[in-house]
Amino acid sequence: MTQADAAVAFARANLERAVADLARFASFPSVSAQPERAADVRRCADWLAKHLAAIGLDRARTEQTKGNPIVVAEWRRRPGAPTLLVYGHYDVQPAEPLRDWQSPPFEPVRRGDCLVGRGVSDDKSQVLAHVKAIEAYLRTARALPLNVVCVFEGEEEIGSPSLLPFLLANRTALHIGAAVSSDGAILDPDRPALTYALRGQLALEVEARGGTKDVHAGRYGGAIVNALDALCRVVASLHDRDGHVAARGFYDGVAPLSAAERAAMARDGPRDAELLEAAGAPAAGEPGYSLYERTTARPALTVTGLSGGYVGAGAKSIVPARATAKLDCRLVPNQKPAAVEQAIRAHLAGAAPRGVRLDVRTLSSSPPTLCDPRTPPMRAAAAAYRRAFGRPAVLVRSGGTTPIVAALQQALDVPTALMGFGLPDDGWHGPNERVHLPTFGRAIETCIWFLDELARTAPAPARPRATAVAAR
Amino acid sequence: MTQADAAVAFARANLERAVADLARFASFPSVSAQPERAADVRRCADWLAKHLAAIGLDRARTEQTKGNPIVVAEWRRRPGAPTLLVYGHYDVQPAEPLRDWQSPPFEPVRRGDCLVGRGVSDDKSQVLAHVKAIEAYLRTARALPLNVVCVFEGEEEIGSPSLLPFLLANRTALHIGAAVSSDGAILDPDRPALTYALRGQLALEVEARGGTKDVHAGRYGGAIVNALDALCRVVASLHDRDGHVAARGFYDGVAPLSAAERAAMARDGPRDAELLEAAGAPAAGEPGYSLYERTTARPALTVTGLSGGYVGAGAKSIVPARATAKLDCRLVPNQKPAAVEQAIRAHLAGAAPRGVRLDVRTLSSSPPTLCDPRTPPMRAAAAAYRRAFGRPAVLVRSGGTTPIVAALQQALDVPTALMGFGLPDDGWHGPNERVHLPTFGRAIETCIWFLDELARTAPAPARPRATAVAAR
Repeated sequence: MTQADAAVAFARANLERAVADLARFASFPSVSAQPERAADVRRCADWLAKHLAAIGLDRARTEQTKGNPIVVAEWRRRPGAPTLLVYGHYDVQPAEPLRDWQSPPFEPVRRGDCLVGRGVSDDKSQVLAHVKAIEAYLRTARALPLNVVCVFEGEEEIGSPSLLPFLLANRTALHIGAAVSSDGAILDPDRPALTYALRGQLALEVEARGGTKDVHAGRYGGAIVNALDALCRVVASLHDRDGHVAARGFYDGVAPLSAAERAAMARDGPRDAELLEAAGAPAAGEPGYSLYERTTARPALTVTGLSGGYVGAGAKSIVPARATAKLDCRLVPNQKPAAVEQAIRAHLAGAAPRGVRLDVRTLSSSPPTLCDPRTPPMRAAAAAYRRAFGRPAVLVRSGGTTPIVAALQQALDVPTALMGFGLPDDGWHGPNERVHLPTFGRAIETCIWFLDELARTAPAPARPRATAVAAR
Repeated sequence: MTQADAAVAFARANLERAVADLARFASFPSVSAQPERAADVRRCADWLAKHLAAIGLDRARTEQTKGNPIVVAEWRRRPGAPTLLVYGHYDVQPAEPLRDWQSPPFEPVRRGDCLVGRGVSDDKSQVLAHVKAIEAYLRTARALPLNVVCVFEGEEEIGSPSLLPFLLANRTALHIGAAVSSDGAILDPDRPALTYALRGQLALEVEARGGTKDVHAGRYGGAIVNALDALCRVVASLHDRDGHVAARGFYDGVAPLSAAERAAMARDGPRDAELLEAAGAPAAGEPGYSLYERTTARPALTVTGLSGGYVGAGAKSIVPARATAKLDCRLVPNQKPAAVEQAIRAHLAGAAPRGVRLDVRTLSSSPPTLCDPRTPPMRAAAAAYRRAFGRPAVLVRSGGTTPIVAALQQALDVPTALMGFGLPDDGWHGPNERVHLPTFGRAIETCIWFLDELARTAPAPARPRATAVAAR
């Protein structure tokens, strides 16, 4: 029995305990977007750091940032072996609207084979899959097959503003040779997938202002500018009738798909009908591409929220003086977030009706990413899926964004594997988010095999440079 | 000294007490649109009924309805004299958004010459102006110059659904010969105005539904219908570029303005600049008409609220599955609410993008009204303004809607005077609503003169019909 076999046996025997830990982890309302949840975010970070210490990692701690703490823990007892950075995030999306949940979002409950609660799939079960793999090694072999530093942030859902500064400031001390990010999905419980592309993201908030105050719709309706009406016009102008984004320059630089890649995507990826069933919605969008292509290899612009005027029960007869919309752009190679932002801002300025002022704020921005499947971590991830699932993982693109992956690859030059264990119908960001517990079990095993494979295949690290940049 | 003179002297001497009563009256959050305020509405009705009893009216009571109670009190101690119905409403608009208020909306405070609080101008000071006029007579002459029945409803801001059934069921018992509605405005503290036209109203709620749930904007953005985006397009389609309402048939039947009326409106009504200053907003809307004409003699369609997706702090990356908008149409003679509703519904159905379902609900509906200035109550009102303000009231159109006026005139055939004491910058329906207290004082005096004039000019009533309809 190899050390990895022993770790897998331990993980299987202790799966119920892992599920209980996940339920506890998911009971913290660690919603990074909502300032009033800051204390809950911190309590979640503290719990996670304590848990990392309890399983035997060294120097488990919360690192303070300008925003939410980063949870860090290390195991560096194999001098000369490579160091793997394990990335995940403990923050979650807002749970609202609460009325759509069948059970309270932060009181995780079992329902059939699943655990239901905000964050159980995105990303808490994926964080715990690595943690439980590490625990299985430490409880059986009393050692890991390579050095590890866990870095779990609390700001992924708001664009990771604090993580890159932390990594840059600590790059020498961390001395990372490879990284794995688990914040993705496979195709179904028996179809493992390895992600090689992430879309970038640009999130904007647009505020329209007309008059200085809300006024009576009877007295002034028909005579003055209506900021809400204006904002609806502006939002409507962002797409043409065919579903293309209408902002001039939005598509500049978009890398075309090769015929070979389109064929591979058609062969290996989800079908239109699968995507629509998982989304629970009719199709729309840019013609000429499959839905899988539209959601991963083509950029998109989505209005994710809009509020103006009176939206409570009944009616309030006012001409609204202001309204706010939130826009989410997903970007693909080789779009530049700054150029796209400029294109959208120019379009918005041109679309505003006379007498209405638009203020545009950038909420977050992150470039798209490609991960070369030939790097050691990607090869180790492929081998790990094959061992755990009994069949090879197909290579897939993801439509989502993990801001730190671009930073790891582009700023730190660290080869990174994108693993993922969510399922398409887990309900990420929506109500009744769930995780499929048999898949959670397989995820732990995959993470064990990943450590085993990477330890055997990753090159030994270069000596750390003498210049200390940690103090930056 | 006549009885009216004595009453005016009493009112002047007791103005501060009247202001204190107004502050108490306005401290009840009697928001009819919000079901959670139902108990506050009831407490407000109870307070008002007690106050009417305290000033000496008979049978002061709250009449139960399917909705909010109607406060009724009578004084019928002059057999053979005409009976005047005094109408007003004790319900108020929602105060939201609360952050725009400089002081809590239901804790009225003095600021300079004004009292600030939700409902102080619309309509609580106008209700109290009549109440204090009645009190002044009863405290001085121990009698009113004619019979009076006060009917103050709690559902005006939601379209008065219970009032007409109540009036129809009690028409014989009430035996009304004339009516006065005080829910309007004058031009400025020294320019009294008598309203002869009200716009009608049609309030609709439109709910757009795309998918079955909110889903991740990264995973599905660009591939599925977005209910919020669809609703923005639908709202944007309701007006053409020139500011006309685009729904086919919307303008059918609109009575054109005569050259004489346009000249009178230009001479007597507010200038564009005055309207814009009061509204605090730039101009917009239908070309070819002055703003006074646009807001009173032309119909309008206003989107008064819209909400979809995530609108809290930060961002939540979702494709919204639903969104809701509220529409407010103001109608002019001879538009029919039912025909306009049909035109809007047909337009909405045609404007919905494929894959998006629209549900349209009617919130309230009321026809436009014209009041003939030659009826006894309108003549008495004109005389009363002249006495109290020292100059004649100009005849004006109002852009607002008082649903019961159409019912009084059309269903009950009761000639009605539209008095009003608000000022254009009182901030009706918006934040920091206020009432100008010197004008409140003059309003009480105007109401005293109105009772005096009407008692001398109104014809004696016909004998009540023998058929009892009160039990309907």
